Amino acid sequence: PKGRFTVSSEDGAYGFSVGLAFHEDFGGFLGAGPRSGETNGDFNSFTENARRVRIPFTFRYKDWVANVTPDFGAGGADGATSDQTLYEANLNYTGLHNTILTVGYFQPRVTEEDSESSNDFEMMERPAITDAVRKIAAGDARFSFGGLHYEKRWWIAAYFTGQSFGQRSGNASANTNNYGYNGIVNSQTGGTFRAAGRPYMSKDIDVHVGISAISAFKVAEVCKSGSASCSKSYGPSQSPEVNLTSTNLIGATINNASSVWSAGPELGFRWKKMVLKGEYYNIGVNRSNQPITGVTEAMSQKTVHLQGYYGSANYTLFGKGREYNIKEGAFSAPGVEHEFDPSHGYWGALEITGRYSVTDFSDVSADIRGGRQTVWSGGINWYPNRHFRFMLDFNHFIVSRTATDGGMSALTWNNAGRDGNSFAARVQAAF
Amino acid sequence: PKGRFTVSSEDGAYGFSVGLAFHEDFGGFLGAGPRSGETNGDFNSFTENARRVRIPFTFRYKDWVANVTPDFGAGGADGATSDQTLYEANLNYTGLHNTILTVGYFQPRVTEEDSESSNDFEMMERPAITDAVRKIAAGDARFSFGGLHYEKRWWIAAYFTGQSFGQRSGNASANTNNYGYNGIVNSQTGGTFRAAGRPYMSKDIDVHVGISAISAFKVAEVCKSGSASCSKSYGPSQSPEVNLTSTNLIGATINNASSVWSAGPELGFRWKKMVLKGEYYNIGVNRSNQPITGVTEAMSQKTVHLQGYYGSANYTLFGKGREYNIKEGAFSAPGVEHEFDPSHGYWGALEITGRYSVTDFSDVSADIRGGRQTVWSGGINWYPNRHFRFMLDFNHFIVSRTATDGGMSALTWNNAGRDGNSFAARVQAAF
Amino acid sequence: PKGRFTVSSEDGAYGFSVGLAFHEDFGGFLGAGPRSGETNGDFNSFTENARRVRIPFTFRYKDWVANVTPDFGAGGADGATSDQTLYEANLNYTGLHNTILTVGYFQPRVTEEDSESSNDFEMMERPAITDAVRKIAAGDARFSFGGLHYEKRWWIAAYFTGQSFGQRSGNASANTNNYGYNGIVNSQTGGTFRAAGRPYMSKDIDVHVGISAISAFKVAEVCKSGSASCSKSYGPSQSPEVNLTSTNLIGATINNASSVWSAGPELGFRWKKMVLKGEYYNIGVNRSNQPITGVTEAMSQKTVHLQGYYGSANYTLFGKGREYNIKEGAFSAPGVEHEFDPSHGYWGALEITGRYSVTDFSDVSADIRGGRQTVWSGGINWYPNRHFRFMLDFNHFIVSRTATDGGMSALTWNNAGRDGNSFAARVQAAF
Repeated sequence: PKGRFTVSSEDGAYGFSVGLAFHEDFGGFLGAGPRSGETNGDFNSFTENARRVRIPFTFRYKDWVANVTPDFGAGGADGATSDQTLYEANLNYTGLHNTILTVGYFQPRVTEEDSESSNDFEMMERPAITDAVRKIAAGDARFSFGGLHYEKRWWIAAYFTGQSFGQRSGNASANTNNYGYNGIVNSQTGGTFRAAGRPYMSKDIDVHVGISAISAFKVAEVCKSGSASCSKSYGPSQSPEVNLTSTNLIGATINNASSVWSAGPELGFRWKKMVLKGEYYNIGVNRSNQPITGVTEAMSQKTVHLQGYYGSANYTLFGKGREYNIKEGAFSAPGVEHEFDPSHGYWGALEITGRYSVTDFSDVSADIRGGRQTVWSGGINWYPNRHFRFMLDFNHFIVSRTATDGGMSALTWNNAGRDGNSFAARVQAAF
Repeated sequence: PKGRFTVSSEDGAYGFSVGLAFHEDFGGFLGAGPRSGETNGDFNSFTENARRVRIPFTFRYKDWVANVTPDFGAGGADGATSDQTLYEANLNYTGLHNTILTVGYFQPRVTEEDSESSNDFEMMERPAITDAVRKIAAGDARFSFGGLHYEKRWWIAAYFTGQSFGQRSGNASANTNNYGYNGIVNSQTGGTFRAAGRPYMSKDIDVHVGISAISAFKVAEVCKSGSASCSKSYGPSQSPEVNLTSTNLIGATINNASSVWSAGPELGFRWKKMVLKGEYYNIGVNRSNQPITGVTEAMSQKTVHLQGYYGSANYTLFGKGREYNIKEGAFSAPGVEHEFDPSHGYWGALEITGRYSVTDFSDVSADIRGGRQTVWSGGINWYPNRHFRFMLDFNHFIVSRTATDGGMSALTWNNAGRDGNSFAARVQAAF
Repeated sequence: PKGRFTVSSEDGAYGFSVGLAFHEDFGGFLGAGPRSGETNGDFNSFTENARRVRIPFTFRYKDWVANVTPDFGAGGADGATSDQTLYEANLNYTGLHNTILTVGYFQPRVTEEDSESSNDFEMMERPAITDAVRKIAAGDARFSFGGLHYEKRWWIAAYFTGQSFGQRSGNASANTNNYGYNGIVNSQTGGTFRAAGRPYMSKDIDVHVGISAISAFKVAEVCKSGSASCSKSYGPSQSPEVNLTSTNLIGATINNASSVWSAGPELGFRWKKMVLKGEYYNIGVNRSNQPITGVTEAMSQKTVHLQGYYGSANYTLFGKGREYNIKEGAFSAPGVEHEFDPSHGYWGALEITGRYSVTDFSDVSADIRGGRQTVWSGGINWYPNRHFRFMLDFNHFIVSRTATDGGMSALTWNNAGRDGNSFAARVQAAF
């Protein structure tokens, strides 16, 4: 990005750059107490989280580029041991026109929300459904092999993917199962595909349409310490669209999963300084065939369908409105026309966002009851200059109960349903 | 600092720098064996520790500065999993004269010793009482919001603080307590204040006076795995002022703590190349009110008072003596007038230090018996040039026994008292 | 290395550089299934591993140099918690001719294979015996104190060594043993020595002879959680020369070890673009004397001898052949004469390698049955330019069974012997 520290050799053959993506959150929850029979979970009235502390290092020799980005703050719980420490580590070939071929730990982009840089997000967090979708076979530091190509009016990408970095850790202690091991003993393989375009564009209007698809062709097999058998399961779970808690109020564990796929449409519309967006995704979980002896068994073989959608509206009050970024096939952050300078009456840029997001991890027909979460949120973002940003988000979440069935257990902190509010702020620096 | 790698854009709007704080310790213990009934603890005859391996990255755009400093060697035990990996990650506004406003993970300075850069320390470690005081609500990578201001003759700072980075980790496993969680479920909030001044200064003399105050307004609530209840407790513990052991000979766990505060005076005096320093701190631990039914219960409600103090004398044998640093409100390291060059008879700079330090974590009137530690130490530091340093420290420590009472248990490695010696060396590079 | 980002002050007093060693592996196992009675172990048909993601930072002031190299991908299991995060952190004095004196966390080089940069390796992994030898008292991030000196025709180095970085972690929980601790309570001390020379050299021929020796004078004492006693043991174990598994098929735990040593000869021969190499090492494990009451006891006091050797042949098909690197006393990677540019018919450099490697961790005379592993491997490496490399390795491994005896237990994943194949690829960037 502009303003990133970069040096090149005189002949242009070599390039080296160091950047920064710094997101620090603080805030808390109000009226998020448990209902009768539930445990509290982790809902502080005030707490903080180093959401992203990434320092991207880029080494280029001619058309070959190596990216390594340590992340000193990844994840929802604030600490080194549970965090990844690596956001990406990959090799790229950029010798073909408007094309980037990549191999290594990468974040293959899928869904419009995930295609935006996290520095540009309208709200602090992605809608829960897009986060759930990308985690199937993409997400941060996912081993990937593939490429993207962009033109002025369309964007396309496809990747073959494996495990995420850090998911094989803990793979070293002997155990009493078939594998004699604890951890992932059979890695996931999967893939992502995304195509997006702008069927209509003008100075005042951008129409964005896209389709994203993702699949874990083979779900990872995991052995657990103290358990005699190993399992293939798919276990989506989501926080209430704010990462100041490590408690996920919705979540299901779908056992006996053989493959997982998801697909859905992306829609976006810009009119002057206003941007409207919406996406819908359906997640299908195929389960292995086993001999069927009764209704319960038959039910537990059914393909599970989870789903979610969101709609958002964003308006730039002052500053340059959000624009379409053809390299991402997605909208980017507002621009600052006049940097913060109160003595001259300049205040940078300011935008407001409203969002309605629904995520449903229940499929009653298949006896899966992982809960349904609705989040109403509103946010305001201030940009004193092009490198710094302050965000303020309010979320109201309404979550239906998780229940014991289909081989899964209810979450102790949500077995009666729950609602609540969060107030969160973010300070951000991006270079 | 001088000699740090720094690049700026031509117009001065952008700045980027990379530095280094590298402290590596080795050495061992002599005559630190256990008394009858005690376990050995961790007192190697020879071992080593990567005390600090920090690479500060600074990104500046005009008056806005982002600092990120990974630490690859933090802590007293040498290893990645128990360490923080992050020393600081914060945003600063420097647009006001001699003022720095900060938000993010930071080390808010409190006490004179903690106000010095660790590159400048007289001895390898802080006196135990100043380390205990700063850890109440400051210390490394503490979430902070506040500012400092300095002038030629005075220095003032105040911060609101939260948790330290990494203390929320492990927050993810379900449990049988009220929260259904393991880890910090209710974050700490606190604050720090420090004011310092130089009532008298001349070429040969500096008189330093200061006051430091710190408080955890609300102590963090922690749930432990396998325990049915969660607790708010304050648990100071300290090593014998050398970090080559992970055994802390003094330490108390004060249950039912509602808030913790500490305050005390700082005194310093420089005469030519000699620096004398002393500080005293009292730590008060308030405990929640509960119905009182007997003497024992009444005793367990009493406010606990812990305390400590130290005095040190330092003399620069050759080289430029220690000077007062107005940006820190504290003394800095000696200067090198002639860099190491034996062929010309130049030897860099050399200083010697003696220190007497007492830390008392017992308060018999409140039934708290965490032990009392006295450390006599002597050290010699050699600076071949301005970026490198070699330190040699000898400590003799005398520790009174910890005992079971007031809800706390004696430490198995110190239930009969203990004394011993340590020899430690440090190699240091600072850029 | 050439092409590393480096800046110096105008007078040459200061230097700062940032480099990269990026190795990312993927591939899997074929026909490596367990025999009857064995557990599977961790042999994926397809998986991946961030083998090395190192960013070396070098800070120089005149003849004094500080190196810090975080590693974001160290180890055989892919994840932050089990990894080191630090490859080296040391201080160096380079003021003497062709000599480097070092203190700090370092990789003291021992054996010809380990003396090569991992960027230059013929195959993806070292032969198992050289890895076992270096781990006795050297390996990555080992605390070291010593130096090396090189001339055009000879190379010599000796280091005193301690623990590796990260091995003291976990040292903090109380326990019921003598020490009241869990982890290393008595650090290892050891040393390394290596001398190498070129008795004959010409344009077409290099003859390399060397000797490497290493010893853990005092084996570390370790206390384990839940165990009443602490122990000194030596436990070599090795994967089948590919790091895509966390299962080691050969491995022994030799209890009651007092010291470990190893020594052996290095031979190398270059004729034009062909390089032949071979090394043999014997590992001796001395055990503490205890009163002897019978044959079994006497047997368990015997010195244990383990051993291994390898031979390899390498040929550069096109590009500049491997050359002798006098600074390492070892052979380096081929050079690229014409960078990859298919339009001009340029393809970079290409080399092939074959290797036969035997590692025997059994010593029947001392009742130690850790298995014997033979690996036949072949590989092909392509260098499109001097900074990037692609490797493809095939291994066929034949492993004899481990057995319960001499106080040790058989490995559950190898109690009947095992063989199998691996296919692995590596993408590499080095700056």
